[in-house]
Amino acid sequence: MLFQPSDPHYEDRVRASFARQRFMDFLGAHLIAVRPGYCEIHLPYREELSQQHGFFQAGTIGTIADNAAGYAAYSLMDADATVLTVEFKLNLLAPGNGALLIARGHVIKPGRTLTVCQSDVSVKSDGEEKRCAVALITLIQLAGKPDRAPM
Amino acid sequence: MLFQPSDPHYEDRVRASFARQRFMDFLGAHLIAVRPGYCEIHLPYREELSQQHGFFQAGTIGTIADNAAGYAAYSLMDADATVLTVEFKLNLLAPGNGALLIARGHVIKPGRTLTVCQSDVSVKSDGEEKRCAVALITLIQLAGKPDRAPM
Amino acid sequence: MLFQPSDPHYEDRVRASFARQRFMDFLGAHLIAVRPGYCEIHLPYREELSQQHGFFQAGTIGTIADNAAGYAAYSLMDADATVLTVEFKLNLLAPGNGALLIARGHVIKPGRTLTVCQSDVSVKSDGEEKRCAVALITLIQLAGKPDRAPM
Amino acid sequence: MLFQPSDPHYEDRVRASFARQRFMDFLGAHLIAVRPGYCEIHLPYREELSQQHGFFQAGTIGTIADNAAGYAAYSLMDADATVLTVEFKLNLLAPGNGALLIARGHVIKPGRTLTVCQSDVSVKSDGEEKRCAVALITLIQLAGKPDRAPM
Repeated sequence: MLFQPSDPHYEDRVRASFARQRFMDFLGAHLIAVRPGYCEIHLPYREELSQQHGFFQAGTIGTIADNAAGYAAYSLMDADATVLTVEFKLNLLAPGNGALLIARGHVIKPGRTLTVCQSDVSVKSDGEEKRCAVALITLIQLAGKPDRAPM
Repeated sequence: MLFQPSDPHYEDRVRASFARQRFMDFLGAHLIAVRPGYCEIHLPYREELSQQHGFFQAGTIGTIADNAAGYAAYSLMDADATVLTVEFKLNLLAPGNGALLIARGHVIKPGRTLTVCQSDVSVKSDGEEKRCAVALITLIQLAGKPDRAPM
Repeated sequence: MLFQPSDPHYEDRVRASFARQRFMDFLGAHLIAVRPGYCEIHLPYREELSQQHGFFQAGTIGTIADNAAGYAAYSLMDADATVLTVEFKLNLLAPGNGALLIARGHVIKPGRTLTVCQSDVSVKSDGEEKRCAVALITLIQLAGKPDRAPM
Repeated sequence: MLFQPSDPHYEDRVRASFARQRFMDFLGAHLIAVRPGYCEIHLPYREELSQQHGFFQAGTIGTIADNAAGYAAYSLMDADATVLTVEFKLNLLAPGNGALLIARGHVIKPGRTLTVCQSDVSVKSDGEEKRCAVALITLIQLAGKPDRAPM
């Protein structure tokens, strides 16, 4: 599906918001691509991100799934709005066992107030990708609210 | 609801599994309480855990909600089993704006294969707690699978 | 939790909306109780409502779980608004094997735009109730939209 | 994705199970297509299926979304197994306003115990289809359990 962004500077706006999220930097996540209604985030493996079996912890999978969806939605929102996650639902399909975690979020249904997105998460090892999670996420546009901490 | 654990050493088992999760230590999360069918996890605020408005990032809320549910379920599982999250669904109710994040997971329905849990997450500031998220989570018991990385 | 309804005639409004839902009558569902932020719906068993094992079909469980949540939310909404379900998530905990299905919806978090509710569904036989499902549901208030079909 | 069914008579098995669901006949739902990992169900509009605005009631949308997913999963299960829904999550994207409701379920991830499916629901009017809901659903295979009521 092709979407027409209302804000021509959507990519700068998404990248600036991503950069303001201290947690993304702390995890080591990278914003790889932003297009209207689409966002891709990568997270390289390191031991600090692992659960008890040594794989990517489910929370890291959920975090980048949620963020990829959030920025896919935010790319279509107005220049003066901010975005919040209303709810998200994630199915884990396979262990997050690999060197790189990739989340691809895309807008299923945009809206003035609510936007619904899907995120697909895969784990990559030796050049091969394997889907490890799928998520369905609802986001809300807060019009006229700055996308940053109050000064 | 009162549950009877099948493994009398359930608390040691839960605490050892929590300690094996590198991601919990990386976030700075603490396992505060474990009882049969119940688990409580705390996460003190620091800037590294924040989203673009300076509040707890949704991923940190989801992570400890999921873990509290997982260990509530794991407390009732067999001594030789491991636990995995099948799926989880989280509703964000208020911004994670505070000094301490608290997740309380409890078993709604235990089972040989699947266990359903609810987690309530609140944020505490100046001695006052405010609910910021609620989650419904499905977990699976993998019998005879070690709860650690393969050697 | 105690809620203060904005519309003193909330019960009449909920009952009138329930009566306009042809599907509720078709199933044979009854609106048993409405209080601010709470709603209870009953559905007596009949073969037409069954799945392949002869129990209440999951769709009937989901339907009254969703409606009990919707009217719990609607009880707190403005007199001139209508309510729609944004999304709902249901965990089935036990077979719907019994003579009467009971859904109790209550508001977890009310809001100007979005309201989050939980519904608990149980099945009753020989005077005994057994929980068979739990649901987490997000609803939206559409202000100034009539709660009926356009003429 | 192409799946290899373990039971060559999967279609007969799915059709027989659908026919045993009294609720499907009561609603007027039709099983249109079954392929390995895929199922399509249609539900023609009638007033008895409507909510307060005269559109398909959310419960009817959820019911056929769940069933399409269930039979997509069941098509890949063993000949002597039955299928149950573990949980399902539905996002409503647009009003169910039209003459025919169409649910298409497909398997995202098959498994010995758990299968994850997605269902897309659209509403058709004057030859045009519009997506009105999307669902993510987890199903369980119960091996050696008959897919019918006990005699």
